[in-house]
Amino acid sequence: MERCDQGMPFLLQYENVAWYEEGEVRILDRRIYPREIRFEICRTYGEVTQAIRDMVTQSTGPYTAVGMGMALAGWQVKDRPEEEQKAFLRQAASELSQARPTSANRYKRITDYCLAAGEKALNEGRDPIEAMRKATVETMNARYRRMQCVGDRLCELIPEGGSILTQCYGETIIGTLIRAAKRNGKTFKVFCAETRPYLQGARLTASCFAEAGFDTTVLTDNMIAWAMEECGISLYTSAADTIALDGHIANKVGSLQIAILAKHFGIPYYVTGMPDRDKKTLSDITIEMRDPSAVLAFAGIQTAAPGVKALYPAFDIVPPELISGVVTDRGVLAPKALAGYYEDATEEDGADIVCGA
Amino acid sequence: MERCDQGMPFLLQYENVAWYEEGEVRILDRRIYPREIRFEICRTYGEVTQAIRDMVTQSTGPYTAVGMGMALAGWQVKDRPEEEQKAFLRQAASELSQARPTSANRYKRITDYCLAAGEKALNEGRDPIEAMRKATVETMNARYRRMQCVGDRLCELIPEGGSILTQCYGETIIGTLIRAAKRNGKTFKVFCAETRPYLQGARLTASCFAEAGFDTTVLTDNMIAWAMEECGISLYTSAADTIALDGHIANKVGSLQIAILAKHFGIPYYVTGMPDRDKKTLSDITIEMRDPSAVLAFAGIQTAAPGVKALYPAFDIVPPELISGVVTDRGVLAPKALAGYYEDATEEDGADIVCGA
Repeated sequence: MERCDQGMPFLLQYENVAWYEEGEVRILDRRIYPREIRFEICRTYGEVTQAIRDMVTQSTGPYTAVGMGMALAGWQVKDRPEEEQKAFLRQAASELSQARPTSANRYKRITDYCLAAGEKALNEGRDPIEAMRKATVETMNARYRRMQCVGDRLCELIPEGGSILTQCYGETIIGTLIRAAKRNGKTFKVFCAETRPYLQGARLTASCFAEAGFDTTVLTDNMIAWAMEECGISLYTSAADTIALDGHIANKVGSLQIAILAKHFGIPYYVTGMPDRDKKTLSDITIEMRDPSAVLAFAGIQTAAPGVKALYPAFDIVPPELISGVVTDRGVLAPKALAGYYEDATEEDGADIVCGA
Repeated sequence: MERCDQGMPFLLQYENVAWYEEGEVRILDRRIYPREIRFEICRTYGEVTQAIRDMVTQSTGPYTAVGMGMALAGWQVKDRPEEEQKAFLRQAASELSQARPTSANRYKRITDYCLAAGEKALNEGRDPIEAMRKATVETMNARYRRMQCVGDRLCELIPEGGSILTQCYGETIIGTLIRAAKRNGKTFKVFCAETRPYLQGARLTASCFAEAGFDTTVLTDNMIAWAMEECGISLYTSAADTIALDGHIANKVGSLQIAILAKHFGIPYYVTGMPDRDKKTLSDITIEMRDPSAVLAFAGIQTAAPGVKALYPAFDIVPPELISGVVTDRGVLAPKALAGYYEDATEEDGADIVCGA
């Protein structure tokens, strides 16, 4: 099977995202990487759903995990009558796609695609498990190919020798940007906001760029304005968990305030990824509120005194006026012009499967 | 000895800040509170200097620690000839006052005051150690009395039932604001930016307000814009490690970006404390760059991969145009009007000893 993850940093290799094999889905536990390399072993699609909910994997990791979870669902009922298998797969697709609310529409595209492949295999007397695993890898490859155009365009926007500021961990764009930079011999520095409470910036984004040989510096989330004043940041870029057609985007909490700071300091902010056709406006975006205990602890160590409360919005919403452009595979679009993205699209583009970073 | 810390939360009681007794200065280790209550025991003034440098205590804790460190210096040479004692005390004052650069001028006011008390005691045949400890408590009381006016004025600025957002840990103003609120029966909610890398907001500020019975919520440093949009923040307030007469202030890194966000959302920002007479302009402010390894770890647990770098500016500078007012004991001053603060001041005001929060 041809794959688009060749030569990528450890975190981006397909087997290290989520992988189905012989009745198990192995998911790299991103909550503890790079301190520890540990895989969560899921033996039911319900365990995959829970692992996504528990943030064992995040960014586009769940796009892979829900697909591999469909293969696992197929394994769970492989000895049952065909109609029962199909009903089980439909239920699995429904549950997996709703693991987390903000990107549920994206998860659903993958589970629908895998479900169709599984049903087709059953109808044709082929193995539905292998069909769904293959379908998942197809979506990964399709995403990588499409996001490579985005990576190429983002790379063009970075001045040679400049510095970019990242937020959280947008795995696909990190891989394709690294590939574009290597191919073009472009050099730039990377500043990573550490992204509390899970520190995806410090642990995941910084790991990828450092492993790929970039000069990589972590900043705590309160150092962003200082760095914009002192470190010569050329541009701020982030992926997005949702890109609505009216130009509002949702991404890891903190994205909004960095966008406000970027505007204050005259630094452009580029969002990467394709718009979500099924999210017309701001009102279609759901912000997931997570268990606030994550804010009051780090690596299991309680930080605040008893009686102190916390809040944990997983994402925030950036309005179009704070976004310089959305870097898509079809060009850098003004956020107010995103609706035009789908005007010429055909089903064969596969855009409906792979949109998002 | 009459003291101004009566009824204050644990962290603000004088013995829990820094205390000299029988050849030892005990300093509460704020780096691990409230997870653990541990006192650093210093047996030389050099150890006190190092403890301040290592952030065993911070905020106005060092103002107390340098004074108690002077008493300890007196103990170190108590059996030496008088002239030798005086020379040693002068050297101690010099070293203690330079423990950290950004507030060195404030430390020096305390060490000078204690040095004068110690020398006077020696000249008069009294115990210089007790004289310097007493002088330190005098500076603590003077600071509390003066900052009570600031706490009273800040309390007036908070709407009944409103919410304030704090940054880092400004210990004296927290104590005096709590006292003012209790005295006036005023209720408000407190949102604390957690303040990475040491989490002073989550660990120290939140502890004090929660212990005093306030509804207290911790936010990670990347949730500030979200909270300003969603939580109805009435005002943002911080202390300052330096307040220059031209209206620039230096405070814990992150203060700048919260000020930019406050302006963006139309939320007033009040800095508390008295201007530093000896800091005329921005160019007189020194920003301490600390060991960046603190950014790459938490509670001794490494977070980033090998090869990843970090930066750790301890403070950043907020320009006057982002500050709604500086709350001083003599009123809420426009940042551009700070130079006027000293126009009517007399030596007896003690302003030169206690300025700062």
